[in-house]
Amino acid sequence: MINKLVIIGVGLIGGSFALALRKAGKVRHIVGVGRSRENLQHALRLGAIDEIASDLQSALKDAEVVFLAVPVGQARGVMIQMSSFLEPNTIVTDAGSTKQDVIEAARSCLARHLKNFVPGHPIAGAELSGASAADAELFRDKNLVLTPLDETRTEAVKQVTELWQACGARVTLMNAVRHDNILAAVSHLPHVLAFLLMNRVCSGAGDNPEDPLCPDDLLHFAGSGFRDFTRIAGSSPEMWRDICLANREALCEQIDAYQNELTALREMLARGEGEAVESVFANARETRRLWLKSKS
Amino acid sequence: MINKLVIIGVGLIGGSFALALRKAGKVRHIVGVGRSRENLQHALRLGAIDEIASDLQSALKDAEVVFLAVPVGQARGVMIQMSSFLEPNTIVTDAGSTKQDVIEAARSCLARHLKNFVPGHPIAGAELSGASAADAELFRDKNLVLTPLDETRTEAVKQVTELWQACGARVTLMNAVRHDNILAAVSHLPHVLAFLLMNRVCSGAGDNPEDPLCPDDLLHFAGSGFRDFTRIAGSSPEMWRDICLANREALCEQIDAYQNELTALREMLARGEGEAVESVFANARETRRLWLKSKS
Repeated sequence: MINKLVIIGVGLIGGSFALALRKAGKVRHIVGVGRSRENLQHALRLGAIDEIASDLQSALKDAEVVFLAVPVGQARGVMIQMSSFLEPNTIVTDAGSTKQDVIEAARSCLARHLKNFVPGHPIAGAELSGASAADAELFRDKNLVLTPLDETRTEAVKQVTELWQACGARVTLMNAVRHDNILAAVSHLPHVLAFLLMNRVCSGAGDNPEDPLCPDDLLHFAGSGFRDFTRIAGSSPEMWRDICLANREALCEQIDAYQNELTALREMLARGEGEAVESVFANARETRRLWLKSKS
Repeated sequence: MINKLVIIGVGLIGGSFALALRKAGKVRHIVGVGRSRENLQHALRLGAIDEIASDLQSALKDAEVVFLAVPVGQARGVMIQMSSFLEPNTIVTDAGSTKQDVIEAARSCLARHLKNFVPGHPIAGAELSGASAADAELFRDKNLVLTPLDETRTEAVKQVTELWQACGARVTLMNAVRHDNILAAVSHLPHVLAFLLMNRVCSGAGDNPEDPLCPDDLLHFAGSGFRDFTRIAGSSPEMWRDICLANREALCEQIDAYQNELTALREMLARGEGEAVESVFANARETRRLWLKSKS
């Protein structure tokens, strides 16, 4: 049982973490910190937090665990503010979608606190935002990756692991580089591809000046496949800008490799190589079928 | 009221067309033609068709309308078989996902019949297949494009339009080139992108030999965004091979243009141009929001 949990950023992720831990009976008192008073008051009404912090210093006093759930672009700024008030035994963990940049920020801003810093990333859907979207079941059966530093105490990792398990998440430990590479491939690249397709359609994708295709024409004939493909293009531009920039090295590698494969497929099409094209598609479908089967 | 409708290929599309017209009371007798006896018997039991054709000649005798709902790669072969038996007044329409190639096939195989040929394309989801997936409501409020030839009689277009409207579809007329360009942008390109991403993940997307990312690692951490993005990679490889080859010119143009935009975004990322990246993403999200609003 945690006596005092501080959540910095009580949005979808922070609020859901609070609700889940409360439901599991794992925490006595939850303090919320955030930019929007209105959102914090909403979190209070929902029972996600017990108290709105008047200032960061009093919030961090006697805190057992601090959960940092702000957009990755803001993590460094918050760490700088925290650094003066953080008590030596307080465990700090976060929910950033990229891990190397958060660790770099912690190394420079919380250097004396690394033994109690446990970087984390819950892989759970986040199209909605704000405390009003919080859900005690958001992390149930979802993956949660922790990327502890060499300096991180085993005991701190264990405590954070137990908190996430109490939320129903499946916890995996790996190093931050590996995490960022995997997420670049299965999350950041698809987001970029979906944003770009949507952007292309909105600019009118016709290149024939005699018969231009205007956005309305294109969108009028876009069907349910297009809708699902572009669902992730409905995500927050600010949040995804931060993620893509934070992980740009791995992401650019993924883009390069993907472009090579797109070029290869284009050549197969141009040469009319039906068998080769079908084999790429069949391979893709079979992998997906097995994947869905393994998840069910 | 049509006295005799012949459906060649009683799968999801052919079967749904039959059920919808029957429900609308627009047809007296429906004859099914197909490769799989088992599927045709299923269609008979479902009430989609009244009769399984013993041969193409007897099927086409006195037919008022023939609906060709076979994969685009098979359209030409079926037209050659039909050509000897088709009666002068029988209207022929199809459901192929690409239109220029179907028209080209019709020009060479049904040259004397072009006045009664009305090429069509219902834009309706088709992940499932076979008569057992048929649904009388499949086309309700969906788009249906007709791409009549210069030779096509107005009366034939009118009749086919009325049939589709009776199925609940929204009918639009346009030329085949425009249709194929629009579909390359909003359907064929996204399918290629989704197949390729899935294929890439299944080959293991790691390029670092010291820490390879195997498919299982990648798929284990793929979330719901990945699942929706790749839903269309569950489509039939054979069907999509045919579509991509049939429309390869327009598709290759779309791939080239998309590659250019992907390269531009990659450069923005590499140079750390957050504002430019955010603007692409924000533009995409706003377009999608307006699109969904216009559809609801």
